[in-house]
Amino acid sequence: MNTFMDKDFLLKTKTAQKLFHSFAEKMPILDYHCHINPEEIAHDRRFDNITQVWLGGDHYKWRFMRSCGVEEKYITGDASDHDKFIAWAKCLGKAIGNPLHHWSHLELQRYFGYNGALNEKTAEEVWNLCNKKLQSPDMSVRNIIKKSGVTLICTTDDPIDALNFHDEIAADDTFDVQVLPAWRPDKAMNIEKPDFTDYLDKLSEAAGFKILSFADLKKALSLRMDYFASKGCCVSDHGLDFVMYNPASDAEVEEIFAKRFKGEAVSFEEELKFKTAFMLEMGRQCHKRSWVMQLHYGCKRNNNTRMFETLGPDTGYDCIKSETSSTSLANFLNELDRDNTLPRTILYSLNPNDNEAIGTILGCFQDSTAVAKIQQGSAWWFNDHKIGMERQMLSLASLGNLSGFVGMLTDSRSFLSYTRHEYFRRILCNLLGQWVDDGEFPYDEDILSEMVKDISYNNAVRYFGFNLETK
Amino acid sequence: MNTFMDKDFLLKTKTAQKLFHSFAEKMPILDYHCHINPEEIAHDRRFDNITQVWLGGDHYKWRFMRSCGVEEKYITGDASDHDKFIAWAKCLGKAIGNPLHHWSHLELQRYFGYNGALNEKTAEEVWNLCNKKLQSPDMSVRNIIKKSGVTLICTTDDPIDALNFHDEIAADDTFDVQVLPAWRPDKAMNIEKPDFTDYLDKLSEAAGFKILSFADLKKALSLRMDYFASKGCCVSDHGLDFVMYNPASDAEVEEIFAKRFKGEAVSFEEELKFKTAFMLEMGRQCHKRSWVMQLHYGCKRNNNTRMFETLGPDTGYDCIKSETSSTSLANFLNELDRDNTLPRTILYSLNPNDNEAIGTILGCFQDSTAVAKIQQGSAWWFNDHKIGMERQMLSLASLGNLSGFVGMLTDSRSFLSYTRHEYFRRILCNLLGQWVDDGEFPYDEDILSEMVKDISYNNAVRYFGFNLETK
Amino acid sequence: MNTFMDKDFLLKTKTAQKLFHSFAEKMPILDYHCHINPEEIAHDRRFDNITQVWLGGDHYKWRFMRSCGVEEKYITGDASDHDKFIAWAKCLGKAIGNPLHHWSHLELQRYFGYNGALNEKTAEEVWNLCNKKLQSPDMSVRNIIKKSGVTLICTTDDPIDALNFHDEIAADDTFDVQVLPAWRPDKAMNIEKPDFTDYLDKLSEAAGFKILSFADLKKALSLRMDYFASKGCCVSDHGLDFVMYNPASDAEVEEIFAKRFKGEAVSFEEELKFKTAFMLEMGRQCHKRSWVMQLHYGCKRNNNTRMFETLGPDTGYDCIKSETSSTSLANFLNELDRDNTLPRTILYSLNPNDNEAIGTILGCFQDSTAVAKIQQGSAWWFNDHKIGMERQMLSLASLGNLSGFVGMLTDSRSFLSYTRHEYFRRILCNLLGQWVDDGEFPYDEDILSEMVKDISYNNAVRYFGFNLETK
Repeated sequence: MNTFMDKDFLLKTKTAQKLFHSFAEKMPILDYHCHINPEEIAHDRRFDNITQVWLGGDHYKWRFMRSCGVEEKYITGDASDHDKFIAWAKCLGKAIGNPLHHWSHLELQRYFGYNGALNEKTAEEVWNLCNKKLQSPDMSVRNIIKKSGVTLICTTDDPIDALNFHDEIAADDTFDVQVLPAWRPDKAMNIEKPDFTDYLDKLSEAAGFKILSFADLKKALSLRMDYFASKGCCVSDHGLDFVMYNPASDAEVEEIFAKRFKGEAVSFEEELKFKTAFMLEMGRQCHKRSWVMQLHYGCKRNNNTRMFETLGPDTGYDCIKSETSSTSLANFLNELDRDNTLPRTILYSLNPNDNEAIGTILGCFQDSTAVAKIQQGSAWWFNDHKIGMERQMLSLASLGNLSGFVGMLTDSRSFLSYTRHEYFRRILCNLLGQWVDDGEFPYDEDILSEMVKDISYNNAVRYFGFNLETK
Repeated sequence: MNTFMDKDFLLKTKTAQKLFHSFAEKMPILDYHCHINPEEIAHDRRFDNITQVWLGGDHYKWRFMRSCGVEEKYITGDASDHDKFIAWAKCLGKAIGNPLHHWSHLELQRYFGYNGALNEKTAEEVWNLCNKKLQSPDMSVRNIIKKSGVTLICTTDDPIDALNFHDEIAADDTFDVQVLPAWRPDKAMNIEKPDFTDYLDKLSEAAGFKILSFADLKKALSLRMDYFASKGCCVSDHGLDFVMYNPASDAEVEEIFAKRFKGEAVSFEEELKFKTAFMLEMGRQCHKRSWVMQLHYGCKRNNNTRMFETLGPDTGYDCIKSETSSTSLANFLNELDRDNTLPRTILYSLNPNDNEAIGTILGCFQDSTAVAKIQQGSAWWFNDHKIGMERQMLSLASLGNLSGFVGMLTDSRSFLSYTRHEYFRRILCNLLGQWVDDGEFPYDEDILSEMVKDISYNNAVRYFGFNLETK
Repeated sequence: MNTFMDKDFLLKTKTAQKLFHSFAEKMPILDYHCHINPEEIAHDRRFDNITQVWLGGDHYKWRFMRSCGVEEKYITGDASDHDKFIAWAKCLGKAIGNPLHHWSHLELQRYFGYNGALNEKTAEEVWNLCNKKLQSPDMSVRNIIKKSGVTLICTTDDPIDALNFHDEIAADDTFDVQVLPAWRPDKAMNIEKPDFTDYLDKLSEAAGFKILSFADLKKALSLRMDYFASKGCCVSDHGLDFVMYNPASDAEVEEIFAKRFKGEAVSFEEELKFKTAFMLEMGRQCHKRSWVMQLHYGCKRNNNTRMFETLGPDTGYDCIKSETSSTSLANFLNELDRDNTLPRTILYSLNPNDNEAIGTILGCFQDSTAVAKIQQGSAWWFNDHKIGMERQMLSLASLGNLSGFVGMLTDSRSFLSYTRHEYFRRILCNLLGQWVDDGEFPYDEDILSEMVKDISYNNAVRYFGFNLETK
């Protein structure tokens, strides 16, 4: 029996252990997609207690507590931080097979030096230990980032964002980690949402002129992309239910915009036409600026109306959307490829059943402008666990070029989540090591070590084109 | 090489063996969902030969024989019971990787003391041995149930059923296993079927008044649910092609009902609207009575018209329906949740690709009214084998709370199928044991033993709220 | 650590090794589905260099090179054969987990006696070694086929094909491998394609009368099937995006045909109706002749318009079509089964998520006219690798009769691809051996050896009804 989560955690073969400890473990971290708040970096936030860090906004944990029958009071309600932690610890103790169990214990080991198991019995001990540790200046947001070996972070930002916290961080010579904005214009795309027109007003203000047409919207977005680019942005991110392809003429799209602009509702078909036009424009704008475009889909959000009305979005009530289409995804990419405006693109579906379709779509749009120009993104959100990552990498390897993979991102709202890069690298090295030890791939240390370092870090540096020599 | 199906069958690690033999193996069986005939329990049926038990109504076995090219004469035809058994044994001898091979051998080991392999060569020996054993009073239906450690059985019953066999069993002090009805009102929902209006007549008779409208139908069902409840029923079961959500006004649903009542056909869209209204009503009625609602879907039935016309339904001609929708499933549950009438619900899809979507939907509707209020049901029907069960549990664990899982059911038509609970528990313990031995979960005997006992039995007792102290 | 691809490659247990080396390895090869050019067999083609063999038409390799960012010049362009090989070797060296890596090394071992690893470092050495070896008469197309143990090959042929190369080969007593045509009438079905009417002209010429109606088309096809049958053909092959079932009356189908015949476009619904009628006719014609019908689907072709315009079809720009329907597939088969005209049928989907739905559909149409009359075809195209084959066989075994499986085909355009049969047999033996060594199936050498030999070769001989006693 192996010890619980010891140094060879998830590394079943000698080759896996060698690859991880000699190569993967030592690489820096490039977190090109997350949801942390740049203000907390700018102001180097510190935390009073572990509940703030762990349960403040992490809807993964909230969902799990609800699955255990815990009262909402101890989740998002008014129970004390202490009582919330105890409730959480009790749940975690039984969370066998759930990635929260591994993530939490990696965080306890790496940031708090606690190597035991957190459960109902050890809850008080861990509560005290963590909170004591959090008093140390070592555990400020910036120090956590630095000790994690992070060299660059992309946050997630709205086109109307002034990005002043990014400025603050960039101007501060005492902190040498790059914190760059990422472009997330979903609100400008979601024409069906009640607040779409209000959002246009805000975007008009940010752009400095009144948006009256789809052409204006495109112009405003282009201006804001220039602004984002001036702050170092080189990546966009789009959250879609599914990747649609419903082409329409410019005139038709303008009509749909005009209809909605007057306050009328649009039909589902009109919505899809508008969004197709919007996304084609985004693709072309990304290509023009040599930005990477990320497409996230396969998600149905806010499924619990009762709780949405109480807690709002991003509170643990989303699910996989099973109705995605490889046809429309391939057609969308083709439309951009036809006139040579397809940017480097990363595709992520929340539905693991899409892995193989994505794997075969990649191959249809690769060319020599980049290694693995079209990428299948790392196992995302609900798939961000051992099985999900293994499935994604096995599919990618079987169908394409694993060695060109840009690897892990945290997609996280927490500053302790950098250990997920470690988690990913262990799973990666285990997979590679198993192939070698089974005689399915030769042991060639040059090739294997380069591959491990590339997927852990170097591929992302090259693919996004980040400047990692100077700040 | 391990011995064929010895005491550590499917238990690959020491921890798995420990968990199974010390904890799982000793737990009673609660079979909350099956299709056995209560009359056979009431009258304590005995069997003349093994063909009656095994091949009398088991369409899983029939399908397999047809896949081997066996003539229908030896399957459902007029060949002798002996010759049918020999034909079956020949097929079974080659059934590598098929769950029938494991199920049959578990039954031979546990009920007949035969530890060899059944195939063409041993067929006569096993025929004689089993038939001799079946002569013993030990092998009556009630004695099989008792020696299997069963404490409670839910049969599957139609709303018009008088439930007199359940009464007979309950009144008999010599048999202390609870045999409760389960509510399966599919015939009252299937408005598109030719016999729908005939069925309404029968239901009218059972309810004691003439059903003339959808409101009447709802009233009749409510009366019959009260009657079922008085017989100890606390669970409903619904067989759906897919979970639909096509909301319509009361008036519209009444119009659809009236149209069909007059003998006219309804469109597919009307069918979906009617069924949506029907299922919402069933959800609310279950919630009102604190019953558990089971939704089975992803099945396309009676695909072979030629054989349907000869043999009727449930004869081995069903398949997976690949077109299911996470969107309509989530919307259906949300509609009930909005007004706080969502009952404890178990979701089963016949399509294993739905595992992950279901796993994420569960999390959207959990609350503190029960541990794991919304459940993903055990791997069902075509998925009721090692790979299917592992996939279901790995998905459930990765996405939710495995420790709250209500576990196995037989879904069976045979009295020898209780060994499928053993099969499930071995697979469960192997999974848990592997995680522990790989260092992915700590060896904490308190936590692990409780989890094993809970998933094997205790969770179901608590979740359904069965009274298992008294008969 | 195992040696890279040694004699026990992929054979993890003693039983697996025994089954492979004692039984599987010795069986001949029946390649019932491939895309090699019969002219090259007739003329016993020889190759100047390894680039001609490997990179001349293999779009699997082209895709992989594009995924590595290689310029098209080195793929399908005007770079020298030497430089193309070097570019390929560099990519292959990093192709961990990709089946191309295994396939290429099996070919290097079996045909060129090279047991090292091909990569950037060894590229020149391997280039020289292979090219030297290719000078030997041993490496002519016919000698490759003979030394591979092949007894019969089915090529893929269009109804208008004169089949003269098949005649030439059959007439040549110095070559005793059967090379038979297979019937691939897709061009006569694809009513939506621009060249449909041109194709009808060619088919008219081949049939000897002018096709003016759908009835004429059916008659022409029937004549050509008779011609193919006279050349030994006993298998058809149909490439479909998905298996549709949109029944229409004869009159309606004639109207659709007439519309298209006049040069008008048909709607998508009309296309589906026409194709349904076409495929039903093909099924009946196959049944009448006791041919096997192969249905390939789940593929969306030619996704990259820009490259299609440069390179044409079958150049590496296809992907999985995720929108397939178990409902229409089951209904299509049922329509043929109803009037007893369902031929022996092999179903292949490019989407591995379809495995289980297919597995359950098989069971609905099996009967005693053949062992495993309806087959799930071997893991196809993008699934033709270890994981894909394992998934297909695990699904087939769990849901049906693995022992009746007709096994592997190459689907290849290359004469070196016969090692894929070895690859398949290793994976098969590993699967069977693992079950035995885990105690999940008894070690009975009679049963296991027969199963291995059947799935490797004998099942296909029996199922297709090939005459393998005489040439």
